[in-house]
Amino acid sequence: MGVVISLDEGKNKLASVKPLVDLTKADMERVNQLILSKAGSDVQMIPEVANHLISSGGKRLRPMLTLASASMFGYGGDHHIKLATSVEFMHTATLLHDDVVDESDLRRGKSTARMIWGNQASVLVGDFLLGQAFKMMVEVGSLEALDVLSSAATVIAEGEVLQLSVAKNMETTEDDYLAVIRAKTAALFAAAAEVGPIVANTSRAERNALKSYGMNLGLAFQLVDDALDYGGKAADLGKNVGDDFREGKITLPVILAWRRGTAEDRAFWRKAIEGGESDDTNLEHALGLITRYGGLSDTIARAQHYGTIARDALAPLPPSAWKSALLEVIDFCIARVS
Amino acid sequence: MGVVISLDEGKNKLASVKPLVDLTKADMERVNQLILSKAGSDVQMIPEVANHLISSGGKRLRPMLTLASASMFGYGGDHHIKLATSVEFMHTATLLHDDVVDESDLRRGKSTARMIWGNQASVLVGDFLLGQAFKMMVEVGSLEALDVLSSAATVIAEGEVLQLSVAKNMETTEDDYLAVIRAKTAALFAAAAEVGPIVANTSRAERNALKSYGMNLGLAFQLVDDALDYGGKAADLGKNVGDDFREGKITLPVILAWRRGTAEDRAFWRKAIEGGESDDTNLEHALGLITRYGGLSDTIARAQHYGTIARDALAPLPPSAWKSALLEVIDFCIARVS
Repeated sequence: MGVVISLDEGKNKLASVKPLVDLTKADMERVNQLILSKAGSDVQMIPEVANHLISSGGKRLRPMLTLASASMFGYGGDHHIKLATSVEFMHTATLLHDDVVDESDLRRGKSTARMIWGNQASVLVGDFLLGQAFKMMVEVGSLEALDVLSSAATVIAEGEVLQLSVAKNMETTEDDYLAVIRAKTAALFAAAAEVGPIVANTSRAERNALKSYGMNLGLAFQLVDDALDYGGKAADLGKNVGDDFREGKITLPVILAWRRGTAEDRAFWRKAIEGGESDDTNLEHALGLITRYGGLSDTIARAQHYGTIARDALAPLPPSAWKSALLEVIDFCIARVS
Repeated sequence: MGVVISLDEGKNKLASVKPLVDLTKADMERVNQLILSKAGSDVQMIPEVANHLISSGGKRLRPMLTLASASMFGYGGDHHIKLATSVEFMHTATLLHDDVVDESDLRRGKSTARMIWGNQASVLVGDFLLGQAFKMMVEVGSLEALDVLSSAATVIAEGEVLQLSVAKNMETTEDDYLAVIRAKTAALFAAAAEVGPIVANTSRAERNALKSYGMNLGLAFQLVDDALDYGGKAADLGKNVGDDFREGKITLPVILAWRRGTAEDRAFWRKAIEGGESDDTNLEHALGLITRYGGLSDTIARAQHYGTIARDALAPLPPSAWKSALLEVIDFCIARVS
């Protein structure tokens, strides 16, 4: 097997999410207003908890995908605003629940909602946001969009359970890992991009193209995220190197280093990940092993593989500013790491 | 996106399936005897039709995977012989049914069973072989092995139906294509490799490693097969260049050339694949387009991606002649094309 990946060749180093942000700016303002309004409740704790996470500075990539994938087909109504908001609420609900499941203290450098308001509030406000997401989908009245988004909600939950079942288990294969990130990350990207063509009432081929784009972008995105946790520009992005390591999360850089390592290396990983011995000295050693066995470069190679598929998915669509912006997002996601 | 794949770098050009053949030689003789005996019936047409295909010179890679994946864990019984035979019967039944569905005249240069005995006989003898496969699995008495193989049978059938639904449809995405080959080819490779560790009663980790190896080997195998149909050493392997093209089959080389092509190119593909204008002049033009848009080289790059995953799946197992032989099969599958 000789797959040689040049990380620089042809890569758009200056790739940015800015063209997508600019194109969706007006619509995103409406989404942001709807987010604030639908996170409101007479039960005061609900907007408090919700806004804590909502205002924490995420890129809102997922709702932008929904807006772009409707607008690029000339959609002129406002259903995409509600669906984009639903998508963001589904994502926010997942984060609230994730932090409880993972017992996380920090997210993007801030205390998690569960550290401030407790686990119960985090679980229930997540449920509230999911409920609001479904209500907005129903208001849109498209059974097809409802089908896509509700299926994604189920798949995401399945993915979280699957992740539990492989947690701290060094025997996890790359296929197991891929099944987890496909369900917990890529499925929502795919649904976010697929509901655009649905409300724009375009062809099945265009719908499939956007779905495939979203799915493969989501896989590339999560692979790069997991690589960033062990290096690259993590610090620039408000992430701490080694968070996954300290939580005993099994991601691809670790899977590759473990599988390719010696018996001695594997004993180290078991102690560190399964045994929780994850101090800074061990993190340093882990980074050395990941580098030695190509764990980072091969994780990025996998991301590029999916990026290429996402690119080919959109290839048949006619040229447009929307298409260019979506293609640039692929490069942007991958360029974050190298 | 800049993924540069060097096809030569590090590839084992002399990779062969011979070490696996040698290691499984004694067991394969028992499998071959069982095949002949279980394909027997008082209904004379059954052994005639079955033996036509059985004796047509396939490599029997799938049953060898089952034998190797049991023996490598020190299994000393004979359940793996029956399971390997079941796996080969499942494969043979699929081929019989495929030729009916595809209305194929030739397979490996010989008339298909349906051309000699007709469609009905081909369908029913396929069903008979599937029945025999299940009977042998039941005789083995492992519910786990039964679960794995019967699930694979369902998935294969689903894959065939999925393939029907994307047939001659140029809008097929790479994801659709991957779903088809995962179901119709890779699922049986995965099951063949997973039942070995099951009868050897080894750990869940080893079972998952072999399953992942089989799945990803199967994906690489089918990708290379589909590349071979448009070039490489196809002629050496008794395949005719362009069979898929003439049948209007949508495989990855075509998907990539179509998606990356101009409007004019796409009109050509529609006429050729959807409209059935697949004479030699058009095949020549199709080959030119596939080459121009990297359809072959990127199909091989995808095969290498899955080959790498298969390799990493086996990495944690201790060194042995069995392991080396299975790893060499990955290189062999990919080297067929380059």
